[in-house]
Amino acid sequence: MVDPEIWTEDWEKAFRRMNADLYIGYLDHGIRDLLIDIFNLKNYYPTSSCTGRIIAIDAPTPWRRKESYIVFKKHAEITREDLERLLEIPVISILWVIASGPIMHIMARTPRHAMILLKKVREAGFKHSGLVASSKRGYLVELVTGIWIGIPVKDSERVLISRNEIDGIVWILNRALAEGKARLESLRKAIKELKAWSDQRVA
Amino acid sequence: MVDPEIWTEDWEKAFRRMNADLYIGYLDHGIRDLLIDIFNLKNYYPTSSCTGRIIAIDAPTPWRRKESYIVFKKHAEITREDLERLLEIPVISILWVIASGPIMHIMARTPRHAMILLKKVREAGFKHSGLVASSKRGYLVELVTGIWIGIPVKDSERVLISRNEIDGIVWILNRALAEGKARLESLRKAIKELKAWSDQRVA
Repeated sequence: MVDPEIWTEDWEKAFRRMNADLYIGYLDHGIRDLLIDIFNLKNYYPTSSCTGRIIAIDAPTPWRRKESYIVFKKHAEITREDLERLLEIPVISILWVIASGPIMHIMARTPRHAMILLKKVREAGFKHSGLVASSKRGYLVELVTGIWIGIPVKDSERVLISRNEIDGIVWILNRALAEGKARLESLRKAIKELKAWSDQRVA
Repeated sequence: MVDPEIWTEDWEKAFRRMNADLYIGYLDHGIRDLLIDIFNLKNYYPTSSCTGRIIAIDAPTPWRRKESYIVFKKHAEITREDLERLLEIPVISILWVIASGPIMHIMARTPRHAMILLKKVREAGFKHSGLVASSKRGYLVELVTGIWIGIPVKDSERVLISRNEIDGIVWILNRALAEGKARLESLRKAIKELKAWSDQRVA
């Protein structure tokens, strides 16, 4: 069971941090309204969020963080020139260009709230979501879409993609990013439905 | 709360199905011992499993199932010839060659059992796992590793990878598959620890 006092304290702390992050400029303003909608649910608060991005990492595999170096990061579309420039840099293991959809973590006050949220967000296209941890602070739901592309473009010796098809690859990466942003819109609708549903239950 | 009768019935049904699948040859024998270890925990049973595979799909994106056609599937290493043959086939949208790690679904009897399992499997390298559904039948935990590579190798008009680097790409795909199999070994150890822990609690 989550202690109501701890819950209120954590909720307020998270809310203050969001406002500070917005002020500093850490937070994409595009996601602000969605975050506020989640805080307004009262039985939930967001703990972290990413609207999706395109990065390049030098790493043996994209899933091992340890031996991995981020060499490029952009929360917007990349250009042909971005990719061409990446193909020129020296690489230790493999250079992966990765487009990933939005990821969000939301704390829920009870297991029931966690499971209701989970059902809603899966329907909204966050199909790889799950309850990932629980503690006296609450039940942490991870929202993931499945939108993810990681292309090995170069190793230490050679370029692995066709140099004639740079535009095609840029298009594929940017389209993944755009699809992620669209999924955030569906999420916002789902959160609004959840709000309507919980308001009705209180009334 | 899960009804004990439904639980026992479902557990037995799943166990019979695994044996039938083994007999027919649906199941990779490599995973048999792991599945039996999970059944032996009694408070859990596996509902589905895949040891990892390399597939090729013709699809706009790898995450949209609807407009996607599987043109190749192998639960073992691919060869240079496999990939070369794939580059010759006609493509409607984009041909993705995908290597993915193991995926497993395990039903747990209580939320507490689900969360204990979740903690263990995340430590064993199934880091994208989560509790994904709950019902009167139990609490469904999805085990996912994060091992996933999807390379767009060709579109309707052109080959996107470098024809000179086929070996490099085959190597990257096969290594992902191998890393997935290794992760299954860690999972088996984690399940054994869980068994020792639960036996101790009963004694």
